[in-house]
Order: sequence, then structure tokens, then C-alpha cells
Amino acid sequence: MSDNDLLFMRRAIELSLENVKKGGGPFGAVIVRKGEILAESCNLVTVLNDPTAHAEINAIRCAARKLKTFDLSGCVIYSSCEPCPMCLGAIYWARINKVVFANTTSDAQKIGFADYLIYKEISLPTQERNIEFRQLLREEALKAFKAWEESENKIEY
Amino acid sequence: MSDNDLLFMRRAIELSLENVKKGGGPFGAVIVRKGEILAESCNLVTVLNDPTAHAEINAIRCAARKLKTFDLSGCVIYSSCEPCPMCLGAIYWARINKVVFANTTSDAQKIGFADYLIYKEISLPTQERNIEFRQLLREEALKAFKAWEESENKIEY
Repeated sequence: MSDNDLLFMRRAIELSLENVKKGGGPFGAVIVRKGEILAESCNLVTVLNDPTAHAEINAIRCAARKLKTFDLSGCVIYSSCEPCPMCLGAIYWARINKVVFANTTSDAQKIGFADYLIYKEISLPTQERNIEFRQLLREEALKAFKAWEESENKIEY
Repeated sequence: MSDNDLLFMRRAIELSLENVKKGGGPFGAVIVRKGEILAESCNLVTVLNDPTAHAEINAIRCAARKLKTFDLSGCVIYSSCEPCPMCLGAIYWARINKVVFANTTSDAQKIGFADYLIYKEISLPTQERNIEFRQLLREEALKAFKAWEESENKIEY
């Protein structure tokens, strides 16, 4: 565990504490590249009325905007809590290489957050989930996939 | 399968096809409330340089902005492809009640997208994932959770 890991995690925790004081969720995140903070945020779900505005998502969007790329390879994310499935998915899409976290999804569950439940739901087959799932028109939709495969001006991501 | 499901899914597919023509990813999504389209979008990852800008995430953010709430209970999401873990997580956080999809994550994998891989990664324990995970300073971070529990001006979500 490097000193830098401690330093950046303390900043993520500080952001989480400050956010509670403002009435927001107890979550903070920092994205670091080449030893420097590139972006940081806290949970803004209730402030922005945006269910996707978790600290990690906000920080990823900010970092990508700064670097002008959707590829955050070489970055580390420090989150005051283990990322939920939405944020973990975003971390994979952004190609972030390392996740440092403090609180766990079980800790989050104990104060009323759904992270742990959502992890359980996502691992279930669609027909066993709490949300209703229905598949239709696959053949029609595959036309877009075929068009993508054949497209010459696509940017792969 | 109601006629409405077909109608709204065809719109999501249409958005995915239009987006390929513009050089974007082959994904479209529509959010419906009380039988009417509330928000719709396509994949904007490469256009916006935002790794989180999947069709479903964009549509959820737009719908929440329109309704001025992070709670999309009563809404249905139509996606031209089965949602990835990031988008499925967002669907749970937004309390959307039903998901209608066309292409599957396996179909997406066949044209080079990581959805299926990310589902596999998320189901693994942290130490077995491709991304490095490290936990530290839990005791310090728990202070923010305690502060949240005790806070009187919090908005639960």
C-alpha cells in the first residue's frame, strides 16, 4: 500500500463527509492519473435529480471530458465505497486499471442502500429478477449490428 | 406482447440504425411512461467522449430531468440490446419496472462489445477480476456512513 493510495483515499472520504453535510449521499470518488488528481466528485443523485449521478460516474465523466477521450487506461479510481454494479460497469467501459475502495457494499446495505441487492439481481437469469424482462424483435435489431460490422466510419470503443 | 411493446421497440431499433449511419454505436433506447415516449437516445460514447453515454443511461438521465425526480417508477425502458451491467444497474437505481430488449449481450459480443465479459467480471470476487482491487481505510470511511444515518436533512434514494 503506497502513501499515495492513502492520500487519495483520504480525499475521497473527505468528499463523502462534506457531501453528507450538504444533504447528499455519503459517497466520494477521485480519479488519479500519473500521480495527480484528474477528477473528483461526490454523489449528486438528489441534487441533480439524476439516478446515475453516483460519485464514480460523475468523476469518470469529468475525467473523460478533461482528457477528451472515452478511454481512461492508466487511471486509478479511489472510491469511499466499493462501486455498485452501475459504477463498476462504467469502470470497465472506461478501462480504468485499478479500484481502491474503503466501505463495502454490505456496509452500504446496512445504512439502506441497494448496492448489494443490485449485485444479487444482476447475477440472476432475466426471468428470475424483480424487474420484468421481455425480449422481442431480435431479427429486426440485428440489422443495426450488421450495419455496424459493415460500417467503414465507425469508431470502436 | 402488446402492440405498444412492438411500437416502442421499433423506435428503439430505428434509433440504433440511425446512429450507425452517423458513425455511432448500434444501440438505441426509449423510456415510456403512461403509454407515451418520455425520453429516447442512442449511444453517444464516441461523440461525447463519455464512456458512460450508453443509450439507456442517456435516456434515463433525460427522463429524470424531464420529470424532475430520480425516481422513474412506473416507466418501461425499451432497448435495442439487452442492457449491460452499467445500464442495468442504472435501471435498478431509477426504479424502472420493466425492460424490453431485442439483441442479446451474446449478439453484442459477436460484434466486439464487452457486455458479456463485464457481466462475467462483475460476478467474480474482487480478487479474481481483471481489474486490481484494494480495500483500505474502512474505519475512516464509515464515519461518513454514520454521519448519513444521523443526518436529519438527508433525502433517501
